[in-house]
Amino acid sequence: MESATLDRLAELAVGFGANVQPGQQVIVIAAIGQEPLARRIVELVYGAGAVFVDMVYRDPYVQRARLQHGIDETLGYEPEWVVERVRQHGAKHGATIALSGPVAPGLLDGIEPDRIGRDRPPGQKQSTENMTEARNNWTIVPCPTRGWATLVHPDLEPDAALERLWEQIEVVCRVDTEDPVAAWKSRMDDLARACEALTERRFDMIHLEGPGTDLRVGLLPTSTWCGGGLTTAWGLRHQPNLPTEEVFTTPDPARVDGVVRATKPRELSGTIVRDLEVRFESGRVRSIEAAENGAVLKAYAERDEGAGRLGELALVDGEGRIGPLDTVFYDTLLDENAASHIALGQGFDWAVGDDDRDRINRSEIHVDFMIGSPEVDVTGITASGERVPVLRNGAWQL
Amino acid sequence: MESATLDRLAELAVGFGANVQPGQQVIVIAAIGQEPLARRIVELVYGAGAVFVDMVYRDPYVQRARLQHGIDETLGYEPEWVVERVRQHGAKHGATIALSGPVAPGLLDGIEPDRIGRDRPPGQKQSTENMTEARNNWTIVPCPTRGWATLVHPDLEPDAALERLWEQIEVVCRVDTEDPVAAWKSRMDDLARACEALTERRFDMIHLEGPGTDLRVGLLPTSTWCGGGLTTAWGLRHQPNLPTEEVFTTPDPARVDGVVRATKPRELSGTIVRDLEVRFESGRVRSIEAAENGAVLKAYAERDEGAGRLGELALVDGEGRIGPLDTVFYDTLLDENAASHIALGQGFDWAVGDDDRDRINRSEIHVDFMIGSPEVDVTGITASGERVPVLRNGAWQL
Repeated sequence: MESATLDRLAELAVGFGANVQPGQQVIVIAAIGQEPLARRIVELVYGAGAVFVDMVYRDPYVQRARLQHGIDETLGYEPEWVVERVRQHGAKHGATIALSGPVAPGLLDGIEPDRIGRDRPPGQKQSTENMTEARNNWTIVPCPTRGWATLVHPDLEPDAALERLWEQIEVVCRVDTEDPVAAWKSRMDDLARACEALTERRFDMIHLEGPGTDLRVGLLPTSTWCGGGLTTAWGLRHQPNLPTEEVFTTPDPARVDGVVRATKPRELSGTIVRDLEVRFESGRVRSIEAAENGAVLKAYAERDEGAGRLGELALVDGEGRIGPLDTVFYDTLLDENAASHIALGQGFDWAVGDDDRDRINRSEIHVDFMIGSPEVDVTGITASGERVPVLRNGAWQL
Repeated sequence: MESATLDRLAELAVGFGANVQPGQQVIVIAAIGQEPLARRIVELVYGAGAVFVDMVYRDPYVQRARLQHGIDETLGYEPEWVVERVRQHGAKHGATIALSGPVAPGLLDGIEPDRIGRDRPPGQKQSTENMTEARNNWTIVPCPTRGWATLVHPDLEPDAALERLWEQIEVVCRVDTEDPVAAWKSRMDDLARACEALTERRFDMIHLEGPGTDLRVGLLPTSTWCGGGLTTAWGLRHQPNLPTEEVFTTPDPARVDGVVRATKPRELSGTIVRDLEVRFESGRVRSIEAAENGAVLKAYAERDEGAGRLGELALVDGEGRIGPLDTVFYDTLLDENAASHIALGQGFDWAVGDDDRDRINRSEIHVDFMIGSPEVDVTGITASGERVPVLRNGAWQL
């Protein structure tokens, strides 16, 4: 089963997710351990008429070596050419396909969280700019590996865990259906309808209430709800995340108040942040507490001026395929599409109108964490103070 | 044994081979399958105070995908940033450590040889320029893998083959000695003495004679014999090849005549060129014949004006540690240090005096192949026509 699923997943990533076009330069990013899916993707990308594939294998052991043995100056160091590479990729309207899934869980255990938080992949800032300006067609798809499978299914033997994870990925990526692209298009239509209904209401604020959570997130006058795919600045449709089950917008970074309890653990730079609680005041993070690795997120939130404010608010309904599996995947791509979430850091330019573009949050980071569940009520508050139910027990109320 | 040998090999590569300096940017190049040695090297490089390690994993399956599925334009395509990266690495005087050894022998079987010959790693031309101008301290060391081991020792079980290959690498890299650096320095001294004796004679021509070989290679008036390490243009000593057993010079690209039969197979772009015979006339390749994959070398030799002329003549004595193993490694690093060889393509600027710099061969390729054995006599011919024995049965006669 694995091999056929892998083929279908690769086809979905290249043809529908990134929507690779003839003559494009394509960057494929995978981790050591994800070779089989990466290789199949490269074959299909060349088959689609790409002029060049830049296959990048990331090795978590190399990151660990840098954190353990590197002089202080090395953390966050960016050679000019790395930035130039990302810049050219944006300017040339290249495509990017990245594979997700933690390949070596726990590898950074014992490393000073502050060092982990200060480290970052070179070129990240420029990548964020490319994303904000919609210069590239891109997608991220999950790639099962043995390491990831044993993290998600610790009670199973490694082989059985890997098989189980592949089965789940097949389901959540909808490659178990006869025509995955048609299945996705149908789901995208539903998400587009939810976006339209939400945007029409022009809520002034979204209120999230649940166990340990009472958070008010202000919206901008032109905040627009997006979901079901993106279009590049030069007009090409693509699906940044497969799976995707969310609708999202860029909130007002000056008006976020209250407390929020994460509803799922969050894999972050090789560590797992558990039992996270974040307090906001006038838009800014006031405190970050966690049972484990809160310091890693704290270091992220201090990286720049906007790192401690919100760039995204996303709502996830109960119709998605990830939530019902009731599985923590320790992978943001999957977990963030199982539950409503917020993100610290960079906002999306295209999720607000021209008038508000100067008001959205700016940062080199963009870190999502999950705060939704069927127990979390989502309510819209209009400018006149009217309270309108948005999500109740995972179902749209609009 | 493997693990201790791996440690010692990594130490030799970082501290003695590349001679990595604090504050340097370092590029480490390995293939998928060579992770254990690559990771240990990265740890040591950061431990040596490097400011950044650019770990590059090459995947032969990605090369195959490009050759099989890529549109014609993709072969030889170089994104600007790839060239820029190599250029900056040269300008910043960075260090490079590459691992050798074929990891997936036979993977390119069945692919059109002409396509293989026309394909090339992006940035190669700029890399050659960096090497010619001695901008970087660098080294190449062999890295045993299962795939390579079964190619070299097809009669052994894979585990036994890998163990045998590690034993051989330990010997040829002299990491079986108590002080590998001292062992190498002593061997380097011997090579330096041979260079001095050869250079002093100012031969006009070198004549190689053996079974199937009768080749005269003209030297330039200032051709200087080199061996036993290099010095960067900015004064840092390093050992480009570990192991190295050769002394070499840049010949006169206009005066090469006769026929030469390769004494070992040559791994080239994932294929193996067997039973090679090359004829030269007035410096230029006139014909290339081989029992297998001659077309791949032919495509290389046609890549540019200098690709069909010689850039290097190297002599290897019988005192080295590779020759006595009587093993074909299918890896140029090892095989070229087992036997005298010549290279098509780019010559070395620093192996001639200023007066002859305009006369050496220029090309973006540099492809060595082995033509020496104890049965091949090497004779120097002076300007006045005197014949002076240089190597007889692998022993220096000077």
